[in-house]
Amino acid sequence: MPHTFSRRMDGLRSSAIRDLLTLTARPDVVSLAGGLPDPEFIPRERIRKEAECALADPASVQYGETTGLRRLRDVLAAREGARIGRALDPGQVVVTHGSQQALSLLAQVLLDPADIVVVEEPAYTGALQVFRAAQADIRAVPLDRDGMDTTALQELLEAGVRPTVVHTVSNFHNPRGVVLAADRRERLAALADRYGFWVIEDDPYGELFFDAPPPPPVATFSDRVIRLSSASKILAPALRVGWLHGDRAVCEAVELLKQGADLCGSSLTHQITAAMLSDEAWLALHLDTLRTRYGARSRALTAATTTTFGNAATLSDVKGGMFCWVEFTDDTIDTADLLPTAVEHGVAFVPGSAFGVGADLGAALRLCFATCPEDVLAGACERLGSAYLAHAQS
Amino acid sequence: MPHTFSRRMDGLRSSAIRDLLTLTARPDVVSLAGGLPDPEFIPRERIRKEAECALADPASVQYGETTGLRRLRDVLAAREGARIGRALDPGQVVVTHGSQQALSLLAQVLLDPADIVVVEEPAYTGALQVFRAAQADIRAVPLDRDGMDTTALQELLEAGVRPTVVHTVSNFHNPRGVVLAADRRERLAALADRYGFWVIEDDPYGELFFDAPPPPPVATFSDRVIRLSSASKILAPALRVGWLHGDRAVCEAVELLKQGADLCGSSLTHQITAAMLSDEAWLALHLDTLRTRYGARSRALTAATTTTFGNAATLSDVKGGMFCWVEFTDDTIDTADLLPTAVEHGVAFVPGSAFGVGADLGAALRLCFATCPEDVLAGACERLGSAYLAHAQS
Repeated sequence: MPHTFSRRMDGLRSSAIRDLLTLTARPDVVSLAGGLPDPEFIPRERIRKEAECALADPASVQYGETTGLRRLRDVLAAREGARIGRALDPGQVVVTHGSQQALSLLAQVLLDPADIVVVEEPAYTGALQVFRAAQADIRAVPLDRDGMDTTALQELLEAGVRPTVVHTVSNFHNPRGVVLAADRRERLAALADRYGFWVIEDDPYGELFFDAPPPPPVATFSDRVIRLSSASKILAPALRVGWLHGDRAVCEAVELLKQGADLCGSSLTHQITAAMLSDEAWLALHLDTLRTRYGARSRALTAATTTTFGNAATLSDVKGGMFCWVEFTDDTIDTADLLPTAVEHGVAFVPGSAFGVGADLGAALRLCFATCPEDVLAGACERLGSAYLAHAQS
Repeated sequence: MPHTFSRRMDGLRSSAIRDLLTLTARPDVVSLAGGLPDPEFIPRERIRKEAECALADPASVQYGETTGLRRLRDVLAAREGARIGRALDPGQVVVTHGSQQALSLLAQVLLDPADIVVVEEPAYTGALQVFRAAQADIRAVPLDRDGMDTTALQELLEAGVRPTVVHTVSNFHNPRGVVLAADRRERLAALADRYGFWVIEDDPYGELFFDAPPPPPVATFSDRVIRLSSASKILAPALRVGWLHGDRAVCEAVELLKQGADLCGSSLTHQITAAMLSDEAWLALHLDTLRTRYGARSRALTAATTTTFGNAATLSDVKGGMFCWVEFTDDTIDTADLLPTAVEHGVAFVPGSAFGVGADLGAALRLCFATCPEDVLAGACERLGSAYLAHAQS
């Protein structure tokens, strides 16, 4: 009997990045592909201590509220409220199973098939998957060194395009590495108010700045912004704690859908996360350490890439986050073709085409500098250089 | 600006059970409403030990595979394979964020709007929510003391109804408490093969039998059965570990959708769960203890309800699980109206109407005997009796 699946499965393809994670299992391959924090930077001893402490309470192993542990929502409301400069109450916060779940639930709450969604190009692949599963009509606006090109967005709007949602990774873009400029944040918010679309401000990397914090969130400037963030990049992915905050009616609709999606999150990992996020002195020190260490790795990768490729590649000017975007000046190259050769040479990356909507991003690739120490990053760049030469000669 | 949400939100309403959980926060109310295991029966010390052990490994805090930790899938494939009497490989198992996520992802993989889904009536509310969110055309077949009325299902099929999915809670039904009879399991499987629908066999309670294990799963008899189960009722809800197993192409489609839904589960809680499920001697003892304790509570609740209501109510013959279904012989009563009076009297339950599709279940209610010790259950029944009298006289 043939397998027939729902129509939403038609447009869906496997995430190139998730598939590449299988490569990382090979010990001879250095993977700069996945957006993985270095496990050595994850405070395992602190997690152990907080798990032990949480487990003294029977509530830590029981079902919890669908919107998340109240204590955790309190901490998040306080932290996020401070960032956007106005008070948030816990009813405007929903804790999700990673910020990916927030994105997925929001898409289901807000989108019917054929509704228009605007994404940045290159786009976060996890957002593309979600919007494809929602059978949305996906349009792209380009990114430049100042983030989303809001003039291009405005032109789309003026031409009559009416998106339901505009998605942006405002800080240290995945994969492009850039930060949305302050004036564009205000402009994006004003466009949302004027044209009545929702902005999903997807911000898992904002805390990982190397020198100075990024400008105030887009959510500072409009109530039509739903902001997403996560503990995965600053504490640990395995806590599976992400969150969204914003409009109360949207939060209530997300809660309703989350009841059916998974009932609730883990009371245990919520308690652990709340304890770590509310220890402000410890958290400040921990974030400072992460910023210093990831900053050093970013510089090491940039230097090694520049040494290896010279004028043959341009790199994003990385000021935070986890990713460096490399564009080869030889635009006949297709990095998807380069990848198998690179893996033979012992290095993996994500080809630019994985992040494309309509544009040809074949000459670009994404490198993650977060997972490996500086010397390994340097060695990986050498391998990439060798692979590039071997590929060019083949 | 008005809030407009997607069409899937139109048919959705909040779970009466989840909403009732707020009542359980009142210390003066004994809640027999939620399907909550007793935290005292949850092996917190063992979880603490396994958390400590897992956290020695950096992989325990990192992102994991979308389908779940390999070691956990190995354990689950072995255990579930033994139950259905044929070998399963780990590629036929997907670990999910509780079995509710398995149900939600399956609905999204299999169903387009207006596709027909057959559920049992009374139905598991979490399944109703999922199928409503999928905008399915929900049909009900009645349950009797032997579980789903497969003759009624066959009549539907012979009348030309072509479901995409048939959902059954085969063991210790939620809310009805009954077990699907062995011959009906074979019949349901044969109907699936003949008419080409998928059976979702939702089985979180099968391990919680009091005297004898239930008959072999429906999945024993057909490859068109996707079986769901969970660690929530036997280990701890806060692990958020559920799973599905069955057809490989369905598993791959679920994996693809799960990438967008939440990337992956928690490597930490997967490691903890794998360790506990693979310690067979410990697990056997733990399950024996649960069976003995929940069995005693079930008998206590049944006795107290019988004492309180005598001939005014009939009770399900509970042989496992967590729930007792009470039907008042006075069918003019509406238990949804009784509920506020009951809460005033210090006891909560779930009214029958929460489980209804088309039938009038207003004279029934669901009691959970798992959460409270015997003396508290007895007291709760007295309170329910007083509330019933007060309500009848009002």
